Amino acid sequence: MTRPKVLLIGATGNVGGSILEALLAADQFDIEILIRPNSATKPSVQALTTQRGIPGRIVDLDGPEDELVPALAGVDILIVTVGPALVAQQKKLVWAAKRAGVQRFVPSSYITIAPPRGAMLLREMKEEIINEIKLHNLGYTIIDVGYWYQLSCPPLPSGRIDYAIPLPDATRTVHGAGDAPNILIDLADIGRYVARILADARTLNRYVYLCGEVLTENQVLGVVEEMAGEEVDRIYEPLDVTTEKALQAFRELEEARSTTGRVNPDDEDNWEKLVPVLLTQYRVSKYVRQDNQPHVAEYLGYLDARQLYPDLRPRLFREFFAEMLAGKGRNPYAYA
Amino acid sequence: MTRPKVLLIGATGNVGGSILEALLAADQFDIEILIRPNSATKPSVQALTTQRGIPGRIVDLDGPEDELVPALAGVDILIVTVGPALVAQQKKLVWAAKRAGVQRFVPSSYITIAPPRGAMLLREMKEEIINEIKLHNLGYTIIDVGYWYQLSCPPLPSGRIDYAIPLPDATRTVHGAGDAPNILIDLADIGRYVARILADARTLNRYVYLCGEVLTENQVLGVVEEMAGEEVDRIYEPLDVTTEKALQAFRELEEARSTTGRVNPDDEDNWEKLVPVLLTQYRVSKYVRQDNQPHVAEYLGYLDARQLYPDLRPRLFREFFAEMLAGKGRNPYAYA
Repeated sequence: MTRPKVLLIGATGNVGGSILEALLAADQFDIEILIRPNSATKPSVQALTTQRGIPGRIVDLDGPEDELVPALAGVDILIVTVGPALVAQQKKLVWAAKRAGVQRFVPSSYITIAPPRGAMLLREMKEEIINEIKLHNLGYTIIDVGYWYQLSCPPLPSGRIDYAIPLPDATRTVHGAGDAPNILIDLADIGRYVARILADARTLNRYVYLCGEVLTENQVLGVVEEMAGEEVDRIYEPLDVTTEKALQAFRELEEARSTTGRVNPDDEDNWEKLVPVLLTQYRVSKYVRQDNQPHVAEYLGYLDARQLYPDLRPRLFREFFAEMLAGKGRNPYAYA
Repeated sequence: MTRPKVLLIGATGNVGGSILEALLAADQFDIEILIRPNSATKPSVQALTTQRGIPGRIVDLDGPEDELVPALAGVDILIVTVGPALVAQQKKLVWAAKRAGVQRFVPSSYITIAPPRGAMLLREMKEEIINEIKLHNLGYTIIDVGYWYQLSCPPLPSGRIDYAIPLPDATRTVHGAGDAPNILIDLADIGRYVARILADARTLNRYVYLCGEVLTENQVLGVVEEMAGEEVDRIYEPLDVTTEKALQAFRELEEARSTTGRVNPDDEDNWEKLVPVLLTQYRVSKYVRQDNQPHVAEYLGYLDARQLYPDLRPRLFREFFAEMLAGKGRNPYAYA
């Protein structure tokens, strides 16, 4: 049996890196990474290609659509991991992937569970790509992951884990009563599940969600305080404030759009107004609407990766936090 | 066990009538029909209420949203069957159904299989309602049915079945080579399957498609000619003409929208421009894209009603056509 050829876009990112390491470890795939022309000489890319010998394909995603088709030749599984700014760019990849004979397209999803419309603009941007995939009858798998442990961990008054905390104020904020359950996961586990999902015919043309643990903010803070022996300096935010912040951010984005005349949510001109919308809408969805939960995922038609792969034990928040305390954590947004 | 309370909207229509008869025959549901204030005295409504004793609720769907909530009190299953012009009106029904405690909302779908975006405006209008349902976490079932036998049967040169043929030119047209397989069904079977689906927990929050037979235009014409002993007077239409007709209809709709400044596809001002778009896009989807097939339905995540209810044998086109020849057919668009 030949090994499926996987092309990974975004291998140097957080999610892409998690997937790359797990696919390499699985030893079941023939892996190549896509390299953008102006990234080829970056140390993070060279660490993968030159130093580790992972084959790379240099492809200009901004080039003409026709040229993307030969660039995808021989690819069975195309995995895209890109930040919000590049989500729309996948549209022409869908078209090219269909023509190139790609069997399974895994678009950049990897976010929290939320309904397709009306709750989160980021979800809507990703749905555009899913709809494009369905329009072309292209094989796909949508993988969502909840929210990372890495972005859910509060700072400690002693400052000893500040080295790995990207959003200190957000993570010491308790929204409402702090009792909304949320699907959380260790970034490293995303790849482990993805490797299983891609070797599994049951997940073709399906939505799958991953889950490390379902925890409320109070539960996360409880684990942290118990294990660290320190009390977290909480900020309390009423839910109506959480909602109003998101509405205000959205109004400012709308205003920027009407000024620039550009309506694409990921248009560069609107980028600085878009980021606050995405961040605040995550919080409304997680804490006010309480979308990011297994029963909502099931309602929305997702398969549960825990049920598909009962032998794969995801890391608990407690295990992740022990590493943080031991100095083995990593700030996912601190790039070399 | 109490019988679920079903409220049916559109009971005097083709699909609604099929569902009503089958639900009554199933004798498992407590059925009421919704009656619009200005329809209460119509003979078609009185035939159901006064003559057959089916309980009706008079509800003004154009009234304030708040008043819809008590109007839906006690309803477990809300079934909506409405024509394209009223699809958008379901949005406030979703909101009211959630507040009234409706357990399962069956929005007006009942069309061919097609991807959610980019292929058919009618599909997109219906997707808007599905997205609204998901935004509210309302229990639902989406039921699609392919295309009716009643709208797929060509006229005969002898004129003997003209009494039951609503679209004579469309049904004697062969699109391209006439070899695109399509999911077809007898209108009467829609209700029989719906009655089973609504009594089945497996179909909650799922998409289900019904299928009588999968037939090409050549196969339909073959059955007709063999059974009638007459040759159908075919019109041949190349697929690029089929596509161009749909594009032209869409351009005219866009022009009408820009003139009226009204963008809602089902806005009254655009209605006469919308109908040709819907009809021509059906043909592109069925014959050019070839969406309306079981493998596409499966790709899009639908359950197959034939697999769910193997004991329920749908009527074959041949059986339907025998009735047409025997004078027992009915023109679905000839209202009394």
